[in-house]
Amino acid sequence: MEDDGEKFMLTAKKSEDFSEWYTQILINSEFVDYSSVSGMLVYRPDSYFVWETIQSVTDRMFKEAGILNAYFPLLIPERLLLKEKEHVEGFSPEVAWVTHAGKSELSERLAIRPTSETIMYESFAKWIRSWRDLPLQLNIWNTVVRWEFRHPTPFLRGREFLWNEGHSAFATLEEAEAERGVILGIYQKVLREYLALPGIMGRKTDSEKFAGAVATYSIEHVMPDGRVIQGPDHHSDGQNFSRAFEIKFLDRNGNSDYAYQNTYAISTREIGVMVATHSDDKGLVIPPRLARIQVVIVPIYNKSSRDSVLQYSSRALESMKGTARVHLDDREEYSPGWKYNQWEIKGVPIRAEIGKRELEAGSVVLVRRDTGQKVAVPFERLAVEVASMLEAIHESLYARALDFLNSHIFHVDDYDDFRKKIGSGFIQSPWCGSPDCEAKIKEETGGKTSNMPPEIQSQASGRKCIYCGKPARHIVNFARSY
Amino acid sequence: MEDDGEKFMLTAKKSEDFSEWYTQILINSEFVDYSSVSGMLVYRPDSYFVWETIQSVTDRMFKEAGILNAYFPLLIPERLLLKEKEHVEGFSPEVAWVTHAGKSELSERLAIRPTSETIMYESFAKWIRSWRDLPLQLNIWNTVVRWEFRHPTPFLRGREFLWNEGHSAFATLEEAEAERGVILGIYQKVLREYLALPGIMGRKTDSEKFAGAVATYSIEHVMPDGRVIQGPDHHSDGQNFSRAFEIKFLDRNGNSDYAYQNTYAISTREIGVMVATHSDDKGLVIPPRLARIQVVIVPIYNKSSRDSVLQYSSRALESMKGTARVHLDDREEYSPGWKYNQWEIKGVPIRAEIGKRELEAGSVVLVRRDTGQKVAVPFERLAVEVASMLEAIHESLYARALDFLNSHIFHVDDYDDFRKKIGSGFIQSPWCGSPDCEAKIKEETGGKTSNMPPEIQSQASGRKCIYCGKPARHIVNFARSY
Repeated sequence: MEDDGEKFMLTAKKSEDFSEWYTQILINSEFVDYSSVSGMLVYRPDSYFVWETIQSVTDRMFKEAGILNAYFPLLIPERLLLKEKEHVEGFSPEVAWVTHAGKSELSERLAIRPTSETIMYESFAKWIRSWRDLPLQLNIWNTVVRWEFRHPTPFLRGREFLWNEGHSAFATLEEAEAERGVILGIYQKVLREYLALPGIMGRKTDSEKFAGAVATYSIEHVMPDGRVIQGPDHHSDGQNFSRAFEIKFLDRNGNSDYAYQNTYAISTREIGVMVATHSDDKGLVIPPRLARIQVVIVPIYNKSSRDSVLQYSSRALESMKGTARVHLDDREEYSPGWKYNQWEIKGVPIRAEIGKRELEAGSVVLVRRDTGQKVAVPFERLAVEVASMLEAIHESLYARALDFLNSHIFHVDDYDDFRKKIGSGFIQSPWCGSPDCEAKIKEETGGKTSNMPPEIQSQASGRKCIYCGKPARHIVNFARSY
Repeated sequence: MEDDGEKFMLTAKKSEDFSEWYTQILINSEFVDYSSVSGMLVYRPDSYFVWETIQSVTDRMFKEAGILNAYFPLLIPERLLLKEKEHVEGFSPEVAWVTHAGKSELSERLAIRPTSETIMYESFAKWIRSWRDLPLQLNIWNTVVRWEFRHPTPFLRGREFLWNEGHSAFATLEEAEAERGVILGIYQKVLREYLALPGIMGRKTDSEKFAGAVATYSIEHVMPDGRVIQGPDHHSDGQNFSRAFEIKFLDRNGNSDYAYQNTYAISTREIGVMVATHSDDKGLVIPPRLARIQVVIVPIYNKSSRDSVLQYSSRALESMKGTARVHLDDREEYSPGWKYNQWEIKGVPIRAEIGKRELEAGSVVLVRRDTGQKVAVPFERLAVEVASMLEAIHESLYARALDFLNSHIFHVDDYDDFRKKIGSGFIQSPWCGSPDCEAKIKEETGGKTSNMPPEIQSQASGRKCIYCGKPARHIVNFARSY
């Protein structure tokens, strides 16, 4: 009866073949699947649960910050997309175009939204007339399509992803700037408290900022292979879009001005970073708050102990229900060992083993997915111990990820050293600010500018650009990136 | 300063020009807006809040029923869409086709999902191998595009809508049939408890069922203009799709069979039905549980009473916060009268008026949006009174809608009478079951078969088909429909 055990097998090792390992743990654990559209992923229940939870906790914080949800059309007329020059240059190579409906050819091509600035700002221009209509802070949870031509990687690079897109309009630059801290604070909290992920926050250089923005701030992660990936971000668009879309308002004194705008996003890409960071050679490790099943009970019995063990297991299930998302795996057709493997690859944080011995001792054995640590706890303390173990797993995943991040930050002033270290995390080096040096470094080493954390910028003073030797103006995180 | 008051004006009356009134209350209340894609709606915060809430309460009930959420790609390759013959005939006239990405022409056209059967069932075929993989009950919250060529009406007829699509696979027909009651029960509960909407549940005739289904059950609503509109539905697909997509499994005895499947949906169309049903000539009336703002406090003061009234209003706000979603409208630039109008057209269930008189009496005046009823309540009882008034409004909206429905059901055995009554609600008439009679009735009267409620089918016995006079086999709701 255990004919389908092989689908849960892993052959690749994280340390030896990261990218093969990454794919195996995602697919074989039934977390996601490929579809017949290359680069478009099927989210199976465990992965969609992660996204739903990220969405719901982020959404709650947005609402507390006064941001309201809305929804805008999936399709954008080509003429709208063309309105902001830099924006269209950034996105048009990747746009999926709808040209026909039924048997009719459309009179104008429609883009599937790669992002919604253009269609939203047409409405903003209608709605905003005076200072009384500001600020306008809207958020949308939707799906976007960007036709990526490179080899797709689940969550990290594909043609469709789910995200939030926040879009704001303010009367003054000061108010617009003040929103940045709120939003990045929310994203950092979601990463810290739910995904158990640290990251480095900083400003992007002008060549790496969002198409159409004045300034982009990002949170960047280091992946297990030493490459770096951009996480959630916040863009100050200044008056770029409001000028292109005529988003004008009359201030309290009757003067007309263009609104100051921001946009920001967190996407399903973070699920890939989370999986890659925490998982191991046995499969997924899902941070407890994002695990659809947090505790799985596996009963161990023979014919004579079956009924009493199952009854005891049900009692254990009941006693934990108020504390955690618990599942009793009472399938008769699989052995306990087979179940252990399956739940391990699926990354369930805690396995509760219940056999005759536990029944007699009035205890339950809890096994941590992240460390493999086993502990027998008395039945009466089960709920309490599970709650604190889930907490402990979360904290320990975060601590390990933070250690990994910290051990992959290098302070480098010498270009030879830079060339050796690039690709193994964040290389923090001084830079003169010239796009030429930035381009040359990228060309010669594959090292791109990731971002510039505000809190280390004072270290630039007195140092020299890693490339040209002129006085440094910034300290930049250089990295090979996804 | 009140230069934008006219945007909140209504000129049409519900009883005189229903369709103009419907559009005015939706647009002028800032509930939704048009976009530059005809038939694709912009959901502003108040309308999206309604959808979010419908989604979250329905989702909770789905989860309690063991249904798991997932996500499937937005785009479907043409060859997949062609796999089930009836299905493709039903949908292909309305499909939006993606033919290009960036500057490249795609080798195969991709459909924006009009519904996801075809892309999901390709995965189902991969995942389902044995009885142990069943039942598989997945649900998706997403957006779909159907290129409707008729004149669009917000929520009721358009080219994009938001919905849930539930898709299940079972080992036996019995299990598949048993799901229907659960799902329709959930939809009825959501309609009853949140949208305050009644409806008539029944089976569709074969000519009106879903493309690819064996049987469709729907909940149908009567609109204020006497026309009928289809609400949430549940389709038994039998083995139609499982045969087309090779969704086969080995049962416990090692025999191979095709899975039995169902699909079901509730969509943003219901928001339109809700708005049309409850609203009046002053604007929207939003059922309290779906109102983003449930109570709006409007302070009334002059220079000398300003501070004390505002302070008292803040205290009122605080005292209601745990009970309802309350907003204090303390904008200085608008008069109380202007505010009354604005919140009335927006359909906020309760207005709390606070002036010097209330301050001195230690009371607050509450005004019901649905009836206009005013009552002064002592400050200490504010939260309690608001809670029970919200309840009362909900129940009274439902009761009125149910009265309206009941007064629009006609039992008709005579075809002349039928011709007179058709268009004014549900005409319940006996029918022989012949598609010819059904087609003739539609041709001659514009009356379509809406559905056949199970509980009245016994009334068919001994009666004659309204069209041909042969013995009746069903009692059908005939109606002019949206």
